[in-house]
Amino acid sequence: MARLHLHLLSDSTGETLEMIAKAALAQFDHSEVNRHFWPMVRSRQHLDRIFDEFKANPGLVLYTLVNEEIRDRLEERCRSLGLPHVAALDAVTAALEERLEQEAKGRPGRQHALDDAYFARVDAIQFTIAHDDGIGWENWEEADIVLAGVSRTSKTPTSIYLANRGYKVANIPLVVESPPPPSLFELRHPMVVGLTTAPDRLIQIRRNRLLSLNEKTETDYVDQERVKTEIAFARRMFADNGWPVIDVTRRSIEESAAAVIKLYQEREARAVPPRVGTKPI
Amino acid sequence: MARLHLHLLSDSTGETLEMIAKAALAQFDHSEVNRHFWPMVRSRQHLDRIFDEFKANPGLVLYTLVNEEIRDRLEERCRSLGLPHVAALDAVTAALEERLEQEAKGRPGRQHALDDAYFARVDAIQFTIAHDDGIGWENWEEADIVLAGVSRTSKTPTSIYLANRGYKVANIPLVVESPPPPSLFELRHPMVVGLTTAPDRLIQIRRNRLLSLNEKTETDYVDQERVKTEIAFARRMFADNGWPVIDVTRRSIEESAAAVIKLYQEREARAVPPRVGTKPI
Repeated sequence: MARLHLHLLSDSTGETLEMIAKAALAQFDHSEVNRHFWPMVRSRQHLDRIFDEFKANPGLVLYTLVNEEIRDRLEERCRSLGLPHVAALDAVTAALEERLEQEAKGRPGRQHALDDAYFARVDAIQFTIAHDDGIGWENWEEADIVLAGVSRTSKTPTSIYLANRGYKVANIPLVVESPPPPSLFELRHPMVVGLTTAPDRLIQIRRNRLLSLNEKTETDYVDQERVKTEIAFARRMFADNGWPVIDVTRRSIEESAAAVIKLYQEREARAVPPRVGTKPI
Repeated sequence: MARLHLHLLSDSTGETLEMIAKAALAQFDHSEVNRHFWPMVRSRQHLDRIFDEFKANPGLVLYTLVNEEIRDRLEERCRSLGLPHVAALDAVTAALEERLEQEAKGRPGRQHALDDAYFARVDAIQFTIAHDDGIGWENWEEADIVLAGVSRTSKTPTSIYLANRGYKVANIPLVVESPPPPSLFELRHPMVVGLTTAPDRLIQIRRNRLLSLNEKTETDYVDQERVKTEIAFARRMFADNGWPVIDVTRRSIEESAAAVIKLYQEREARAVPPRVGTKPI
């Protein structure tokens, strides 16, 4: 198979386009795809410099440009160079134009408006960082979600991921010898979720962790019986308190987080019946 | 304008589809759009339950389902209910099929494979959390990026955002009275970037911060002359060391992060001439 150059042009951060490319490419075997990422393309001059790169590395051009003049110029040049080009958001935008009975504004960067939702998201990130690993438990009532689990069940990265989606998250490691603060069992606003995993998988992850820290790899921390006891202790606590449980074995952070969001939305829907899936972005 | 129900169906986490919807909707005024989010749709049973919701709240259906059987069933049902429906990734997928000369696999969740890139990203998040706010400066040489700036220039959320994109980031607050560790000026591997902002804007943000902490709002921390001195001190440090600077005034976290990534890629491109924009994910 020939090497494919994939040019990604955005007039904003390019984040959406990167995700589109990643999701679509995941459906192919593509060891030979070379991505060229061109964010913040908002002027003819900038575009003209990129055309030089098109000539050097011709390939498929994907874009989310919304400014009509810049877009027209890009499309015209792609045609003259014989390059295939796809406006990645056009099908969705066209459907929205029809349903909302208005034309798309064509103004770049509008999804990065510094609006209330944006500041709420930044707050969520700050809150989550300040409530990692059991820190700041006095404020747990302010959290949307509290994740509980034994060491190395991905509590931190899952919390951070959820914070990026707008949720205020705290997390607490469960340690047999040292019970969590009693307030954990009395929370009203936050949803507490237990994270668990298969003992063998946990031992493997912890062993790698110790190796990467250059520490000896035969301790209680990775002892099979010991780890089983720990996980059973956590599972019992989840059951005793009626907390929903997510098994993170072989799940990516994104998938665990999606499962947490689903639980959260179901809880919200039960609390206020007509509200379905309308939590933040 | 009528209220629009927007149904988003994914057979994986739905993250890509949510971003597509957000980016496209940003080009409209849409106070009346009600999003219904349906991730992890992988069975006929699940789909059938969602059809009930379609009937209750008919609207536009966007989907990224890759399994052919589930997709066909969805499309057929949308047609029979008279609902407009758009396969959000199809244009891009079709272009890739042609250029890569293979058919898309049609297997859900492939972008969440637990591969090397995935684990590198989780490592980046762990590293970044452990190197927030000047902590762990002994390991800065392992970072890809070190962000430096005075208090409240969005160092933490920008770091976290970059970590989610796969970069190992440390950040350090610049305080006039307490100089940063000398190692900051001797880093070889990481790119150091200075964050700055307009004094008035900084005072406003800090005042809000004090208010939210219930502290008194007339301190050195928000004194105009004092803040100007602080920013000048930081700017001089950036200039003396030849560090690139990003002004975060009126930029969202995503936009600041995109500017950092652009600088990083330019530096990489200079270091190894033929490599353009091929950093992670």
